[in-house]
Amino acid sequence: MTVTAQQDRRTADEGRETALAALQRRFGERFTLNRTIREQHANTLTWQGNQPPDAVVYPETTAEVVEIVRLCAAHKVPMIPYGTGTSLEGHVNAPSGGVCIDTSRMKQIIAVNAEDLDCVVEPGVTRKELNEYLRDSGLFFPIDPGADASIGGMTATRASGTNAVRYGTMRENVLAVEAVLPDGRVIHTGSRARKSSAGYDLTRLFVGSEGTLGVITKITLRLHGVPEAISAGCCPFPTVHAACDATIQTIQSGIPVARIELLDVASVRSVNAYSKIGLPETPLLLLEFHGSGASVKEQAERFGEIAEALGGGPFRWATSPEERTRLWQARHDAYWAARAANPGMLTFATDACVPISRLADCVAETMQDLERIGIPGGAVGHVGDGNFHVQPFFDVNDPAQRAAIEGFLERLAARAIAMGGTCTGEHGVGQGKMKFMAAEHGEDALDVMRAIKTAIDPDNLMNPGKILPPRAA
Amino acid sequence: MTVTAQQDRRTADEGRETALAALQRRFGERFTLNRTIREQHANTLTWQGNQPPDAVVYPETTAEVVEIVRLCAAHKVPMIPYGTGTSLEGHVNAPSGGVCIDTSRMKQIIAVNAEDLDCVVEPGVTRKELNEYLRDSGLFFPIDPGADASIGGMTATRASGTNAVRYGTMRENVLAVEAVLPDGRVIHTGSRARKSSAGYDLTRLFVGSEGTLGVITKITLRLHGVPEAISAGCCPFPTVHAACDATIQTIQSGIPVARIELLDVASVRSVNAYSKIGLPETPLLLLEFHGSGASVKEQAERFGEIAEALGGGPFRWATSPEERTRLWQARHDAYWAARAANPGMLTFATDACVPISRLADCVAETMQDLERIGIPGGAVGHVGDGNFHVQPFFDVNDPAQRAAIEGFLERLAARAIAMGGTCTGEHGVGQGKMKFMAAEHGEDALDVMRAIKTAIDPDNLMNPGKILPPRAA
Repeated sequence: MTVTAQQDRRTADEGRETALAALQRRFGERFTLNRTIREQHANTLTWQGNQPPDAVVYPETTAEVVEIVRLCAAHKVPMIPYGTGTSLEGHVNAPSGGVCIDTSRMKQIIAVNAEDLDCVVEPGVTRKELNEYLRDSGLFFPIDPGADASIGGMTATRASGTNAVRYGTMRENVLAVEAVLPDGRVIHTGSRARKSSAGYDLTRLFVGSEGTLGVITKITLRLHGVPEAISAGCCPFPTVHAACDATIQTIQSGIPVARIELLDVASVRSVNAYSKIGLPETPLLLLEFHGSGASVKEQAERFGEIAEALGGGPFRWATSPEERTRLWQARHDAYWAARAANPGMLTFATDACVPISRLADCVAETMQDLERIGIPGGAVGHVGDGNFHVQPFFDVNDPAQRAAIEGFLERLAARAIAMGGTCTGEHGVGQGKMKFMAAEHGEDALDVMRAIKTAIDPDNLMNPGKILPPRAA
Repeated sequence: MTVTAQQDRRTADEGRETALAALQRRFGERFTLNRTIREQHANTLTWQGNQPPDAVVYPETTAEVVEIVRLCAAHKVPMIPYGTGTSLEGHVNAPSGGVCIDTSRMKQIIAVNAEDLDCVVEPGVTRKELNEYLRDSGLFFPIDPGADASIGGMTATRASGTNAVRYGTMRENVLAVEAVLPDGRVIHTGSRARKSSAGYDLTRLFVGSEGTLGVITKITLRLHGVPEAISAGCCPFPTVHAACDATIQTIQSGIPVARIELLDVASVRSVNAYSKIGLPETPLLLLEFHGSGASVKEQAERFGEIAEALGGGPFRWATSPEERTRLWQARHDAYWAARAANPGMLTFATDACVPISRLADCVAETMQDLERIGIPGGAVGHVGDGNFHVQPFFDVNDPAQRAAIEGFLERLAARAIAMGGTCTGEHGVGQGKMKFMAAEHGEDALDVMRAIKTAIDPDNLMNPGKILPPRAA
């Protein structure tokens, strides 16, 4: 290290100490250097190593976020915006240290505009809290990634989940955001109009930016009317391929299915063991239909015909709302079920998304690959969108198994990209998928992303070390 | 002018001559300096003054676009990407001169992936050409701005139109683009996967960028299944307010209406005179329902109940496909009908979009404003999205009337923005709406747009003088 570099680092360290001390004075008990809390804020459901921030601060208003950002920016201290920590690819790790800005106390539901089917919320509101609040309004917020994630985090990672096949993802359901830029300026993107052609789509730029462009402090969301009728159930199939084919035909024939979820046999077995729900132990589609009473009945009948022609069925209804809730809770608990079925082993959910015509092949090749490397695992998927997850179970302390998983993930990403798809349909890039970005986008498109990042965050202070790998030499 | 500035300009002029000569040698008959053709390429359905480019060139492949862009970039010559010239706010004017890149000969439909409900097209394919091509596939491309616009132009302006209430706009229906950057590099954004969380949403950045970030050379579009049943018709209402209220209730109650269009009395009268279609001369909603036979019937019945409770109806069906086509053609010809009804007068379609709860008020206040300044005009609207257009008729050579219209447009933009809406729902910014950008977005959000523009196009060569006004001092 040269003398200049040493001096630079010393100056940076001193700047960081100054900023942390100022934040401590300003935020008192809403600021912490506690190691356990910092580690909790670094990573959760990921197999990326834990890289805690230097401190955690809990703002309660946009003005407080501005204060924090200005202080950090003045001393060039990295900032990591934080929601509930349910991201899966190391999104909230702090590889360069810095201050974690935990938005969980920003919990105001600022407005619900029932006539316009929209609402404005602070980022710390979780999706379940929002839906609880909306309970008597006849409206609901459909995006459901499983975890009770914060709306801010869901916006930042472009979350989706089981309902996306009908209601879209955060991309389609965020109308506008308020964000604090890396220099502390506050911008508003979008409006409450349902569409606009007024310039660059900054809203969509912030949706999925994973905290790398600023701190999202308000979100305007589309809401949807609670359907008059909802019916759900499950349908067994002889093979995963037949279940995928039924999905393709359902989408093609325009049945407006609200959820259509695949579970392979391994997943059904662990879900049955964990949730005591007694599903038939074959490849399954779990489905939900929304609409008027007549429309829901018609949708289910048309799906039933498709399933039967492919050797599937019979469709088994979840008759009561309670049974329906239990069915979807069991689906969402597939991750925990898999963990319970494999005590002492690590698991995590991979994520890939392909055009639906390639889904059956992609799932089959992926599961064969997993079998070939001798690691057990199950597959589940939001198959109406061509999106699926694999959960491998392995010994994280065994270097050979780790290496095998690394290879498996690289082949999965390459396979999805080669099929015209993406290495991540909904989990995001974080740290874990940076290495696939060049293969997916090409260096020139990545350069455009890098140019945007540099234009908005020239000092690389907002969630550094995420999404964008350094350019290949 | 200083000596240096004079030299700079002389160098620039020489560079431009060199570039034009090189393009002429390379493209021969596919390059023109003809004044009439240049003027045709400058502006069409706009009241912005005509500012022709220095030349027009007709590439046929992405590689040719790259050649053109590299040549222009090397000599710092502005470039104006061009589709069919049906934009409305001076988008294709050339205030700094330069080369118009006319993509109308890039007409390949590269792939139709029926199983995945998507296709890949070149930018010069028009929406009617695409739908003609798809005719026997059971699929269609729904976005319908009225004009037979090119897919490239529709992507660049984030077009929408009558079907957007059900199928979304270009924002929701473009999956990916290929674009030639201002330095000639070619990037691919997005994939054929229906969703992705893999980094910044460059696709949505190019959708609506109005040619200011690059030349779009391929577009991957979502397609939709042709519905089993389609029914359309019109429904009279006692007032525009009642028609808007019926729209709000229809959307709120979740009826998946495919089109819901407002015509005020003035518009109905000119449409009747122009298209000889005999519509009842009251405020009207024109509607279309898509679905299964049973679902279409149910939707129409539920809408009928809403209309009746608000004093509207009876709903009049367009029974045959021919009658349905005539009805929508008449709606799309509202612009030409208005021109025919006011010979010698100029008209153009304004554009604003507000949350639907404010639509009735916004339309009423806007039409009162127009009446107050003594200028006749009619209103039509894609009211399911809160989007409406006013067509004033005025003498373009009368400075007083021009000034009155300028004031009217400023008040309309301010009104829409104050109501939580936007100064343009679908026509885009071009030159005409640049002056409203600061009021809509704020200077700080505009600065983010400017930073993105500069990062991607540092020499401001791509369609300069559009979207982004200079920063206020």
